[in-house]
Amino acid sequence: MKRHQGLFITFEGSEGCGKSTQSKMLLDHLEAEGVLAVLLREPGGVKISEKVREILLDKKNTAMTKECETLLYMAARAQLVEEALLPELKKGKVVILDRFLDSTVAYQGYGCGVDAATIRAIGLFATQGVQPDVTFFLDLDAAEGLRRRGSERDRIEERALEYHQRVRRGYQAIAEEEPARVVQIDGKLSKESIFEIIRKRVDLLLREKGHA
Amino acid sequence: MKRHQGLFITFEGSEGCGKSTQSKMLLDHLEAEGVLAVLLREPGGVKISEKVREILLDKKNTAMTKECETLLYMAARAQLVEEALLPELKKGKVVILDRFLDSTVAYQGYGCGVDAATIRAIGLFATQGVQPDVTFFLDLDAAEGLRRRGSERDRIEERALEYHQRVRRGYQAIAEEEPARVVQIDGKLSKESIFEIIRKRVDLLLREKGHA
Repeated sequence: MKRHQGLFITFEGSEGCGKSTQSKMLLDHLEAEGVLAVLLREPGGVKISEKVREILLDKKNTAMTKECETLLYMAARAQLVEEALLPELKKGKVVILDRFLDSTVAYQGYGCGVDAATIRAIGLFATQGVQPDVTFFLDLDAAEGLRRRGSERDRIEERALEYHQRVRRGYQAIAEEEPARVVQIDGKLSKESIFEIIRKRVDLLLREKGHA
Repeated sequence: MKRHQGLFITFEGSEGCGKSTQSKMLLDHLEAEGVLAVLLREPGGVKISEKVREILLDKKNTAMTKECETLLYMAARAQLVEEALLPELKKGKVVILDRFLDSTVAYQGYGCGVDAATIRAIGLFATQGVQPDVTFFLDLDAAEGLRRRGSERDRIEERALEYHQRVRRGYQAIAEEEPARVVQIDGKLSKESIFEIIRKRVDLLLREKGHA
């Protein structure tokens, strides 16, 4: 893992789990506390990666293979890491990222059947070895998440319920493998209860890093 | 290497080396002989890969990192392999491809400094292990190639002469490592002399495969 002065926080989970809401709540909280923070999303976050995002989420691209999909997510990630994540961390900022490498392990690995060791090897190249200080995994039943999402769905969200259930099991497996990094939170809790768990953990990490 | 009935031919070389001209001449020759053949290009060849090509060659994308660039070429390749290359080979056709994995080793590896072993590992994933039966490498001085190309240049072609010289040395190294697969041809020879070398080798391979 590369050393940096900032704090790198990722949010993970299947569709409709509430991670985008929670990542915005965390940004607002940090800014209110006077902590320099930035919120980015995957795939995207910088111009080139947003162009890749358009290809990935376009419903017309039904022919996309799992290998192409995996490599496009990695390409978008590589650009984001070098152009935004590493520079912001070097400035000492808190970087909140809505999805990162765990998403590829869960969606393309557990979901589509791409070999997990291959994903991690390509991920090491794409991320230059940078890893989150903490990952909040909001665990929610796949059917409940899709219900919350409603009828407006992109190419990935459109996949069958069974696919999204495999994705959830993927995240649960990652959380079991890396309990020191991944904080698994019950997505059925209230928005406020979930945020309280996140806030406490982040405040602790900021104190450890000497930010507060 | 995956077994297939068809014949897989790639053309490689630095800018302006004449490979696009030669690949079209080969297609015309095969069609005149009644051999089922198809000519594809990289990056591109199928719809999703052509979208990736637009991002790769867009001069506005000056911020693109070498990791992102490598992964985008691989993503375009993965889609082309599964959607066009493997199906055409399974039908027993001759597939002529203008650039393949050697281009990434030469351009992103030797040219940009990406580790060659990493490129080959990601390449194995992107290509599903399929390798050309024969590769024609048209070897030409980088300055001469860029002169032939003229002033209309894309993002990759715009790079400095020194970069294109490293690319050429990369191709020469690949040709030395794999003499059984790679046929190195002097790009200063006449168009007709180059084609004669290519035609003889392809006719031999077609006889071996029982096509002619």
